[in-house]
Amino acid sequence: MNIVELIKEKKLLEAKQELMKHNAIDIAQLFEELEMEDVVKVFRLLPKDMASDVFTELDRDQRAHIVQSITDVEISNILDDLYMDETVDVLEELPANVVKKILKNTSQDRRNLINQFLNYPDSSGGSIMTIEYADLKKEMTVKDALAHIKKTGIDKATINTCYVMDDNRKLEGIVSIRKLILSDFDVLIKDIMTTEIIYVNTLDDQEYIAEQFKKYDLTTIPVTDNEKRLVGIITIDDIIDIIDQEATEDFQRMAAMEPNEEEYLKTNVWTLAKHRIIWLLVLMISATFTGNIIQKYEEVLQSVVILAAFIPMLMDTGGNAGSQSSTLVIRGMALGEIQLKDTFKVIGKELGVSVIAGLVLSVVNFLRIYFLQKVDFFVALTVCISLFFTVVLAKIIGGILPLAAKKLKLDPAIMASPLITTIVDSIALILYFSIAVWLLGI
Amino acid sequence: MNIVELIKEKKLLEAKQELMKHNAIDIAQLFEELEMEDVVKVFRLLPKDMASDVFTELDRDQRAHIVQSITDVEISNILDDLYMDETVDVLEELPANVVKKILKNTSQDRRNLINQFLNYPDSSGGSIMTIEYADLKKEMTVKDALAHIKKTGIDKATINTCYVMDDNRKLEGIVSIRKLILSDFDVLIKDIMTTEIIYVNTLDDQEYIAEQFKKYDLTTIPVTDNEKRLVGIITIDDIIDIIDQEATEDFQRMAAMEPNEEEYLKTNVWTLAKHRIIWLLVLMISATFTGNIIQKYEEVLQSVVILAAFIPMLMDTGGNAGSQSSTLVIRGMALGEIQLKDTFKVIGKELGVSVIAGLVLSVVNFLRIYFLQKVDFFVALTVCISLFFTVVLAKIIGGILPLAAKKLKLDPAIMASPLITTIVDSIALILYFSIAVWLLGI
Repeated sequence: MNIVELIKEKKLLEAKQELMKHNAIDIAQLFEELEMEDVVKVFRLLPKDMASDVFTELDRDQRAHIVQSITDVEISNILDDLYMDETVDVLEELPANVVKKILKNTSQDRRNLINQFLNYPDSSGGSIMTIEYADLKKEMTVKDALAHIKKTGIDKATINTCYVMDDNRKLEGIVSIRKLILSDFDVLIKDIMTTEIIYVNTLDDQEYIAEQFKKYDLTTIPVTDNEKRLVGIITIDDIIDIIDQEATEDFQRMAAMEPNEEEYLKTNVWTLAKHRIIWLLVLMISATFTGNIIQKYEEVLQSVVILAAFIPMLMDTGGNAGSQSSTLVIRGMALGEIQLKDTFKVIGKELGVSVIAGLVLSVVNFLRIYFLQKVDFFVALTVCISLFFTVVLAKIIGGILPLAAKKLKLDPAIMASPLITTIVDSIALILYFSIAVWLLGI
Repeated sequence: MNIVELIKEKKLLEAKQELMKHNAIDIAQLFEELEMEDVVKVFRLLPKDMASDVFTELDRDQRAHIVQSITDVEISNILDDLYMDETVDVLEELPANVVKKILKNTSQDRRNLINQFLNYPDSSGGSIMTIEYADLKKEMTVKDALAHIKKTGIDKATINTCYVMDDNRKLEGIVSIRKLILSDFDVLIKDIMTTEIIYVNTLDDQEYIAEQFKKYDLTTIPVTDNEKRLVGIITIDDIIDIIDQEATEDFQRMAAMEPNEEEYLKTNVWTLAKHRIIWLLVLMISATFTGNIIQKYEEVLQSVVILAAFIPMLMDTGGNAGSQSSTLVIRGMALGEIQLKDTFKVIGKELGVSVIAGLVLSVVNFLRIYFLQKVDFFVALTVCISLFFTVVLAKIIGGILPLAAKKLKLDPAIMASPLITTIVDSIALILYFSIAVWLLGI
């Protein structure tokens, strides 16, 4: 019988035994299947140290529910067991009155620290770091250092990298636990520490910090204040979340939405709608320019009605061709592979690709509509010449616009499919009708 | 004067001194600015251990160039210094004749190992693991273990997690270096090791492995064969590359391209074109169905030509509305937040969101075209009713198709903007003309 069933049948003792066979993450996952009323009941079955491990893995609603249902002492017990970054994460998600209640039960020192953390800007180094790092002094021997770690290491987020500071907490060097273990006991820390340190500032943006991790294959990074005093460290598990989050933001922006950090299934309909409507409106209104172009060429359409039949194909192909280019450039920029200085290289590549793609598409299309659909030769020619130039222009515009956005300090990701499509639509139509007027002599 | 300038002026000694102030990754970055003819010259300035570190960070072309320009002994020296996964990565990128030349200089044992690695399927656990892990026995004391690590640790990819195996190399437990350091010297490994191990198989897909890292906040994972014998480990720095790579693949598929692992700027125009043309062709041909619909309603268009002016707006808005939904669902599925069993939840959410978005867009559009553009009341009504239903259908289709793709064992990412746009276009037009016929009595 599985745990959820045991709980439903109120066999709590058996449920507890079953629970203890699992790790905190799997238990947290199991909580997702529980009814809200059972959440607190099951949570209280967990031994103290397991309780806080499970707590950090629960989702926002369940955390809030638990905090509001348990005693102040129980809350303090959980929060005391959490690392500083987790504590702050939890507090940020809770309603203000609950936070007040919790802070009341916290020591003055820790309260000050928490308030300092809550004041770091969103997505800054300060807001994602934790303060539980292993600290050493450069005069220590390896033996001293290992003894110091043994004494204090239990509370640290990681001891895989240790940080060497002077008396003013200024960061002087780092030394890996591996180096400590591989070195002889009487060697001094200052002789084995690395002084060439990759570090970030409390105010650096998380995207920049993630780049440092990737570039230097780090698993932790020290965070310093403006005086280069060590104030915390960031560990790689948080960076993985940030990498996913930044990619998700790009996906959302590229599909013309305001980014939303919450999981889709956990976001309510109003919030989902709010994040989507503004861009839909903007793009809808922009698309009316395209309509105006068609209106302007009403006479052309009326004399050769068949021309209307190729409008969707032209518009869609132009949009797709442009989106391909903009997607590659936006992603390349996000990964740091394409920079502003590469603008001419991008134009060169897109010109080459678009000429090839444009030729292939035009020829295939010509064969199809002239021989299969038996369309008039000059109409077919009009369609295919327009198609060729649409693809070329779409790809060059798609390649340039993300770089232009960057130049203007905008997010390149907004220059994606929907916006490119709207822009390319107008160009495709003007080209199409102009070529029609010229070739068909309307 | 910077290093590149020093090299250009052939001040190699000074260049070497300057180089030694930097770490391997920064030196590798500097290589990107060098002319190909200087690459080998500068590479030979590096001391032996630094040379292999820099080598793994260089790009494919430069690696191949170096390997083909240096002596066999130099190649062996570099490869001997690399971890197995790096060696295999390097070999996979080199031309076959160069690989042959290298393998000739390798011991039989290592050659067998390399061949085994080269045989693991692409993107499998076996192909990304490395074999340099710290191994312990459960009968060791902590003191023995630390001594063993001290003796062998220098060659290991990481010692932060150590692996306990029986005599048949069967994985029995893991113990972190932290636990070793925090434990007393005479404690037995078997008493502190964790036996509840998260591990993967050599044949597991890298996407699944990355999910395990995220789910359990791991920094390494053991890789076993079908008999649960330990054959290697995967470290988190490789996982970060995989997470980026998987997201990039999704970006590319969602913009209707065949995924391409190479960096944009390093891919030639033909390859770029090849990855884009097939989908452009497929979508172009699909878009002709939309053209056929317009042709079918030629008479309607001829009697109320103004209707043509709203076609781009309807098509674009439908496409955008659908892409928003499909993007959220595709990304949610990639992150494991949305599963097949959530299909009805997704439909419910999209129905709600689309009714809100559809209403807002229709009302705004009605006000604009009726009052500002002075379009006939019934035409305005036709446009807005079509718009509403297009948005609703687009969002529901956008939400369902990625899930349907998964059900059919296809990649959900192909059900993105371009394909959704093509499908929604047809629906939007049929709706539009049907409502026009009905409301305007054509």
